[in-house]
Order: sequence, then C-alpha cells, then structure tokens
Amino acid sequence: MSREINKDTQLCMSLSGRPGNFGTRFHNYLYQALDLNFIYKAFTTKDIEAAVKGVRALGIRGCAVSMPFKEACITFLDELDPSATAIQSVNTIVNDDGVLRAYNTDYIAVAKLLNSYQVPHDAVFALRGSGGMGKAVVAALRDAGFKNGYIIARNEKNGRELAQEYGYSWKSDVGSLAVDMLINVTPIGMAGGPEADSLAFEPEVIERASIIFDVVALPVETPLIRYGREHHKQVITGAEVATLQAVEQFVLYTGKHPDDALIAQAATHARG
Amino acid sequence: MSREINKDTQLCMSLSGRPGNFGTRFHNYLYQALDLNFIYKAFTTKDIEAAVKGVRALGIRGCAVSMPFKEACITFLDELDPSATAIQSVNTIVNDDGVLRAYNTDYIAVAKLLNSYQVPHDAVFALRGSGGMGKAVVAALRDAGFKNGYIIARNEKNGRELAQEYGYSWKSDVGSLAVDMLINVTPIGMAGGPEADSLAFEPEVIERASIIFDVVALPVETPLIRYGREHHKQVITGAEVATLQAVEQFVLYTGKHPDDALIAQAATHARG
Repeated sequence: MSREINKDTQLCMSLSGRPGNFGTRFHNYLYQALDLNFIYKAFTTKDIEAAVKGVRALGIRGCAVSMPFKEACITFLDELDPSATAIQSVNTIVNDDGVLRAYNTDYIAVAKLLNSYQVPHDAVFALRGSGGMGKAVVAALRDAGFKNGYIIARNEKNGRELAQEYGYSWKSDVGSLAVDMLINVTPIGMAGGPEADSLAFEPEVIERASIIFDVVALPVETPLIRYGREHHKQVITGAEVATLQAVEQFVLYTGKHPDDALIAQAATHARG
Repeated sequence: MSREINKDTQLCMSLSGRPGNFGTRFHNYLYQALDLNFIYKAFTTKDIEAAVKGVRALGIRGCAVSMPFKEACITFLDELDPSATAIQSVNTIVNDDGVLRAYNTDYIAVAKLLNSYQVPHDAVFALRGSGGMGKAVVAALRDAGFKNGYIIARNEKNGRELAQEYGYSWKSDVGSLAVDMLINVTPIGMAGGPEADSLAFEPEVIERASIIFDVVALPVETPLIRYGREHHKQVITGAEVATLQAVEQFVLYTGKHPDDALIAQAATHARG
C-alpha cells in the first residue's frame, strides 16, 4: 500500500472456512490504483454470529461470505437484496451505519454474464452439481427466462430438490439429451483438487453442445474450458464469474466503478 | 505498507470513543520497519459487547481499549493480568486462539518509568486528578512501595475514594504541603483543550518539588513539563508514558522487542 492506514481508513473483509488470497489481493490492488482509503483482509471464524455482529459493531464496511457461512449468516442480518432472497444464500454484506444488507453477487455475476454473452433464452441447458453455487446459477437461469434445463446430479435427492425448486428436471447423467449449454458447478477440473485433470462432461456430450460454462475459477482455463475452446464452442469461464462478482462487491463497498482494463489488471494480480 | 496484505496478515486494532492516529501510525510503522505481517487500524463502536466478541470471533490478534470502554469491556474477557486487576481497568486485549487476556499497559508503563528514573520510594507525591489514568498511576505508585502521597482533586467524593482505595490522603489543593513529586493526570496543558496554556500546579508549588510527572502526552512538552525543565527539575513526560505503553502492547501482540532508536522513530512518526 502506498497510502498509510489512518483513523479514517475503512476495512472490508471476507469470512470463509478456508481464507484464500484472491479477494484480498483483488480489492487491495484496486484501492491502491484508485487511491481509496480502504484496506481488505480475509478472516475465518468458529462463531459466525459473533463475527457478523462484530462486523456491525466495528463499522466494518463490507464483508464477503463464503462456505460454510453463506446460509448460516442470514439470521444475523438486517435486509436481504433480491439477489440473496432468490437463493437464500449470501456472499456479500454491506454495512451502512450498522444496518447490514446482504447480496449474492455470484447470482448477479452469472445473470450479467448470461446477458452479456447473449445466451438465447430458449437454449436447453444441463447443469452438473447441486451445491450452493449451483443454486446461484440455476436461479439466475430461471430469472433470466430459461425454460428448459436439466440438473445433472448423482445424488438424486439433492438434484431433484434443486430441479423442482426452480422448475427444471433432474437426471442422473446427461446421456443422450439434446443440450445447447453445459454448465459445470462441481469441483471437477479445479486446480489442486482430486479431479483436477478431469472433464466435467463426456467429450461427445461437449461436442454436441454449443456453449460451455464452467464456474471453476482456478485454473483460468480448466480442462472443460480448454476442450470447449479446442472444439470452437462459446465459453464462459469461472474466472469471469469470480472477477465479476468481486467487481460487484467492490462497487457495493466503495461506490466506485473501475474500468475494464483496471479490473483485468487487478484480476491478474489477484491470481498471481 | 511495503508488504502486501494477504490471508496470513494479522490485524491489531483499537477501540475508543474518539479514534486518533497515534496507535495506528506507531504500530504500522514498526510492522513495516520489522517486516512483520501485521496491520493496525483504529475503530469505534456503539456496542462494546459485540465489538469485543467480534475481536474473539474474527481472530483479531490484539485490541487497545480507550475511553469510554476500559471498564465496560471487562465482563466480556476471559482473563485479567495483574496490571488490569490492580485497577479494574483494561487498555489492552490479547487474543490467543479465542482466549482474551487483558492488561493495563498504562499501569505497566508508569511502573517501569518510576523504576527506570529511580524515583525514591520515600518521595512524597501529590497527584492531581481522579479519572481512569489517575487510578493507573496511583496503583503503580502503591505497588512500587510509595508510602506517602496526596490525591489532589476538587471533586471531594472522587478524590477521597481514589485516595482511600490505595491508602493515600485526599486534599482539595496542594497548598503548603511538602511534596517531592508532582503528578498531573488532568487534561490541563493538553493541546487543543480548554486549558492548553495552563500549568496544572501553581508555579511556587512546582518550584518546591524536585520531580515533575505529567501524563498529558500532547504536546510532547506541556506547559508543566516546560516549566519544570526551566527550573531544572527531573521530568517524566506523558509522551514517554504513551510511547512505552504502546511498546508494551506491541510486544504483547507480536512477541518482538524493537530497539530504543526504532521506538523513538516510530513515536516521532506517530505524532507527526
């Protein structure tokens, strides 16, 4: 930081089970580039109630929320933005003079990406996974007007629940379904994970689709995205989701909109 | 900061009714000089319970406590060091894996200064003031073995209470008492205060004493200290107390002991 911390410096933070460096590096890079009197730091906690109440009591300006706190935090908040209501899951808290308002910028980011890539609403999708991020993507699809889609999950109970909640169908695998857009929200392909080198869908399934959307953010090019690019598919990457949701948080916390070039620099720095 | 904040960076902070910059600048200067992965930031709060519980829940390493929270925080802490027990007043919280242990480094600093200046224990003192800092100084005097002293306070009830608690006498003014050490713990002489230009004791009283101790830290040379120096008295300044108590906090939080030259640089920077 070139700017010295003083009594007027505002703190933004994150709460997650296993803090990483992406948010810390992304936000601090932008604070410095835009000369904002903010700092950002990642935290974990064993007491989500006291942590959230501490955010309010200490006047901490903003707080990103990750697993396993995205639902558990809700009872301690004051207001939910529709982005959080849509999936009853929070990834962002904004503190305005002690009033904690919660958002889900994953939902917002996915909705914006579907829109900016002009994915046609009559595209049939198959989404693999049934966790919290799956919910954010499925809700964004439904709210954008996508009528036909399948939730692909080995766990029938979770898969059926997610499908029914948002008006889609459950399948245990893609099989021979005619699908335009494939969406991976499992950890398959994630760097450092047990399936880092695996494709989230069978090659022939990928080849039949036209749009490949992977929410895995690291590596920037997952095996699924690489395979999609090699086969000339339209791709939407998890790195884009991760960056865009962080930008949405940045704007909520600071009121400032960095330009695209600066955002790209910050994202590269944050992953570096 | 030359060091970039990351997920392992530890936060230390302060809680006070009106945050200043001294602690923030002092600690951050030393973190940078010693290349420690710490940051320091000042906070205020309207909810001391949630703030202290937030310190624990967020794993904030250390927290300085100032007016009006020095007594109110005690009920939310886990352990009291003898320095805090002595006056039932806390100015420092150290968080070891969720266990909050509290200290009073004002008490510690005053005790160390009385010792390092080799103030003889048979010196008769007159201490003016009866607030929280007065208690820290009086307790340090008693625990160091000072037998004879007077609490000078216009408010008879407060003055008598403080005197009786620690085994001294109360007087409404110094008058013609034979006194070796004069101690000011009122705001008289404080920069920006209503009595910034006033002496805390009458000139003839100062002239009769041999040691002048002012706990007012700003300016570094108060009118009382200047007058004492001009009359060749031994002086102990509030700036020394403020710096030494901050050093004690720094050591408690980081386990590192900066050398005297570096401490002096940090204090100069913090006041600048």
